[in-house]
Amino acid sequence: MIKAYAVHAAGEKLQPFSYEPGSLDRTEVEIAVEYCGICHSDLSMINNDWGNSQYPLVPGHEVVGTVAAMGEGVTKLELGQRVGLGWFSKSCMQCEWCLSGNHNLCQVDAEQTIVGRHGGFADRVRADEGWVIALPKELPAEKAGPLFCGGITVFNPIIELGIQPTDRVGVIGIGGLGHLAVSFLNYWGCEVTAFSSSPDKEQEARDMGADRFISSRDPEALKAAANSMDVIISTVNVSLEWSVYLAALRPKGKLHFVGVVPEAIPVQAFTLIGAQKSVSGSPLGSPATIEKMLTFAARHGIMPVTEEFAFDQVNEAIAHLEAGKARYRIVLKH
Amino acid sequence: MIKAYAVHAAGEKLQPFSYEPGSLDRTEVEIAVEYCGICHSDLSMINNDWGNSQYPLVPGHEVVGTVAAMGEGVTKLELGQRVGLGWFSKSCMQCEWCLSGNHNLCQVDAEQTIVGRHGGFADRVRADEGWVIALPKELPAEKAGPLFCGGITVFNPIIELGIQPTDRVGVIGIGGLGHLAVSFLNYWGCEVTAFSSSPDKEQEARDMGADRFISSRDPEALKAAANSMDVIISTVNVSLEWSVYLAALRPKGKLHFVGVVPEAIPVQAFTLIGAQKSVSGSPLGSPATIEKMLTFAARHGIMPVTEEFAFDQVNEAIAHLEAGKARYRIVLKH
Repeated sequence: MIKAYAVHAAGEKLQPFSYEPGSLDRTEVEIAVEYCGICHSDLSMINNDWGNSQYPLVPGHEVVGTVAAMGEGVTKLELGQRVGLGWFSKSCMQCEWCLSGNHNLCQVDAEQTIVGRHGGFADRVRADEGWVIALPKELPAEKAGPLFCGGITVFNPIIELGIQPTDRVGVIGIGGLGHLAVSFLNYWGCEVTAFSSSPDKEQEARDMGADRFISSRDPEALKAAANSMDVIISTVNVSLEWSVYLAALRPKGKLHFVGVVPEAIPVQAFTLIGAQKSVSGSPLGSPATIEKMLTFAARHGIMPVTEEFAFDQVNEAIAHLEAGKARYRIVLKH
Repeated sequence: MIKAYAVHAAGEKLQPFSYEPGSLDRTEVEIAVEYCGICHSDLSMINNDWGNSQYPLVPGHEVVGTVAAMGEGVTKLELGQRVGLGWFSKSCMQCEWCLSGNHNLCQVDAEQTIVGRHGGFADRVRADEGWVIALPKELPAEKAGPLFCGGITVFNPIIELGIQPTDRVGVIGIGGLGHLAVSFLNYWGCEVTAFSSSPDKEQEARDMGADRFISSRDPEALKAAANSMDVIISTVNVSLEWSVYLAALRPKGKLHFVGVVPEAIPVQAFTLIGAQKSVSGSPLGSPATIEKMLTFAARHGIMPVTEEFAFDQVNEAIAHLEAGKARYRIVLKH
């Protein structure tokens, strides 16, 4: 039996919940959970914001733990090895996207850790070997969980957009995702601009490596940023005046979304055509990119800023997140 | 005196018009015009659709002719040499964009052939050496004019987006720009899909190299194209149901605009994020890309399909274009 925390209907509180996971599949891994980060997507799934929640629902997709059991086909891991698990728990491994290293774009059998299956708010959680990634020894287990969702979500665009250390990069939203984006980009060598609606985050953002801080509530400051950035990564889930951010881009500039915003983004063709700009988005990252991120984070000591809660305080932790008080990522501990 | 055709107020007919061009600048070239294509932008400028027209206005920015005079600083051309001139007539040559080969994105002193100066509906027209490009001998002078605006507008994204011969590429709008896009992409080795609102263009599009033809007025056919293309280039100047074209893209797919559409393009963040899609645009191309295009066109015999009018029939030619009857590009001849 796996002992977990589940919600039984949209928006309800988490309650202790046990389930029988059945026998392990050939390439499946069972992780003994040590820590699990809380992501805003857990909240979206709890509340069925995206209409795809199935209850009882066990959230949790920023897992760090050790390999407790393995199917007989698992080859790359060892029992007891420390590993992490993120948003995806399986992909087909055989479609053109998986075969070309883009497992996060698998169109055939992409399984998401907390969609139609049970996640990491539990003592154990299972996933396919392909998405269970070894944690480098240099990374502290109690802090690494958020790298597997929040971290890879903002690291992936650095790889996919081909961001160069000579680039000037903006990050919209200095929260769970944004603070990691600032840190990665700082060590990547970029000039980093933090956009935030919370002026009290300026000093922290600068400490994380932001070279510039612009209040997203200051129209004059936003206007003054015109034609100054090569890439802007938006991590927020609210609609902003996007034309201002498009204007902040230099020629060939890219406005890239990793946070889902509610309303359609209105884009003027003239804006795109005149200076060869683009608007794009991306989901998480492939296993190979996760490994690349972990190696880079280990080399530079890049870590999320976390607040720790015990697993039996999970409802308090969720309330803390929902109130917008998390600084900057919450991790649950057994 | 240069003998030209000019409009004297928005929307008026063209009338014979003479002007004194003054002395040649150091790096300026005077072209004896043999042929000049008519582009939809000429019409937009005649009608002051973009609010930047200055009258009297001499349209014409798809020029083919011979070098009639040169400033003393011109080094790469010879008197009598056959050359072409497109939308841009000058750039600063010294800003970071010019220095990096992106002269079409020059932010300092980009001069457009028919904006605030006189264009190619004339016996002579002037431009800076940088934007006067030698025409390969293999390309027939009477047909090459449209390559310098329509052609480079659709060739440039092939280079800038890094389109591969293995890609499946859609072209929206089979007109002056679109028919050249189909031809370039066919010789580039791509699988080409033509989207057109004119079912009678199907056979011609297939003759130009389209592998598939989809009527943009057939919602079922558009829906059936879901998840089938890597890039779609839109050449039209009307607003369409863009979500259908975004759905027609495969993962990592790009919807690219070279035609200005009137309303903002509404883009859902979920659509971009889920399958790493993007929406982008680009303006014309640099001199180096124009040379690349001409060499490629010469090697494969890629030519616009043109209709010829005499210069003194310019108003009839404009009316023909305005009525949507051009098949596919009009060229004026002296």
